[in-house]
Amino acid sequence: MLKLYYHPMSFPSMGPLFTAEAAGRDYEKVMVDLQSGANKQPDYLAINPYGRVPAMVDGDYKLAESGAIMRYLARGRDLYPNDAKSQGQIDQWFDFAVHHVRSNVARVQYNRVIAPIIGAPVDENSIQLGLKYISDNLPHVENRLAESPFLCGDAMTLADLSLIAALEPENTARLDLSPYPNLTKWLKARRSETFYTNIHSHFGAELGM
Amino acid sequence: MLKLYYHPMSFPSMGPLFTAEAAGRDYEKVMVDLQSGANKQPDYLAINPYGRVPAMVDGDYKLAESGAIMRYLARGRDLYPNDAKSQGQIDQWFDFAVHHVRSNVARVQYNRVIAPIIGAPVDENSIQLGLKYISDNLPHVENRLAESPFLCGDAMTLADLSLIAALEPENTARLDLSPYPNLTKWLKARRSETFYTNIHSHFGAELGM
Repeated sequence: MLKLYYHPMSFPSMGPLFTAEAAGRDYEKVMVDLQSGANKQPDYLAINPYGRVPAMVDGDYKLAESGAIMRYLARGRDLYPNDAKSQGQIDQWFDFAVHHVRSNVARVQYNRVIAPIIGAPVDENSIQLGLKYISDNLPHVENRLAESPFLCGDAMTLADLSLIAALEPENTARLDLSPYPNLTKWLKARRSETFYTNIHSHFGAELGM
Repeated sequence: MLKLYYHPMSFPSMGPLFTAEAAGRDYEKVMVDLQSGANKQPDYLAINPYGRVPAMVDGDYKLAESGAIMRYLARGRDLYPNDAKSQGQIDQWFDFAVHHVRSNVARVQYNRVIAPIIGAPVDENSIQLGLKYISDNLPHVENRLAESPFLCGDAMTLADLSLIAALEPENTARLDLSPYPNLTKWLKARRSETFYTNIHSHFGAELGM
């Protein structure tokens, strides 16, 4: 069976899990214990030589990188149909979410949450830059969701899943999404769907909480 | 005719130009004068509402984001064949180049080249982090190119073009690629091909040099 390797605190891990659920794929979740360094052990490096999560194994086919796994799982389905112009629009919003939202959310999340946990220095300047770039970019998403129920038309695509994954640290990173009512409404609706609740219902137990 | 909007100092602009050349597409290059703020004027915002380069117009179809444009130009060709497993491997190395090479090269390039030009503060810590992450990640590329002439097999794909674009600031950012002989050899060979020389032969004149 197709296996997806992940860690609940790795938000690039979330995209492949959401995609597997939304695409109705049969799969097995395998948590990689990053805290104990399981990702640097030979058996995991045989799956992903970079030693990162997420990773995927489908029979003898191995894949790393969140976006590559998401496209592999969704290709040819409604989430990512085989049509160059549809794929182009989905790719555009997918990459917008990764480069202009996720990368900046990651700065804030790292410095507000991860750095204090691991005892690394907190870079206040990086937090402020991240928040500035987020507020430069989310208005484009807000405008888009004011005119369209999903990022690319009337149904959910890989682009929406990419943005949902990018906003996973909303609470822990203390992001303020209140200036974006359409985005907030869209996010709340998506988080009530089974592709999302199926993944999140297990996280407390997986983190030993 | 298909139009590609770019600026020679924007290295995310390079991927679409290389792809258009390598895919043998008929296209017109349109330089967007970022220094004068042409990217924030209404006629350009009608093409790309984010006000960034690169962007593409193909008839009445508009596209933004470097990776989305590259995939659109290459899809179904040898650079990015219509086969899920081939696309997966290409996507993996494409994303590796973007997330683990380009993003770190960008840190170094920004602080060593752009910040001094625009009079912004130089973040020495960001330079050191960028160099560290580059040297953490390029060994994976070096290992790959020791066993395979291209990142994904025996012929050039979108993955190679992504990595070539990511390494465009090699000289200006003063990157030391000497620890990576296979990468250096591969890069030199690719830079002698017409997809590359066709783009670079005009840059001096375009920059008014």
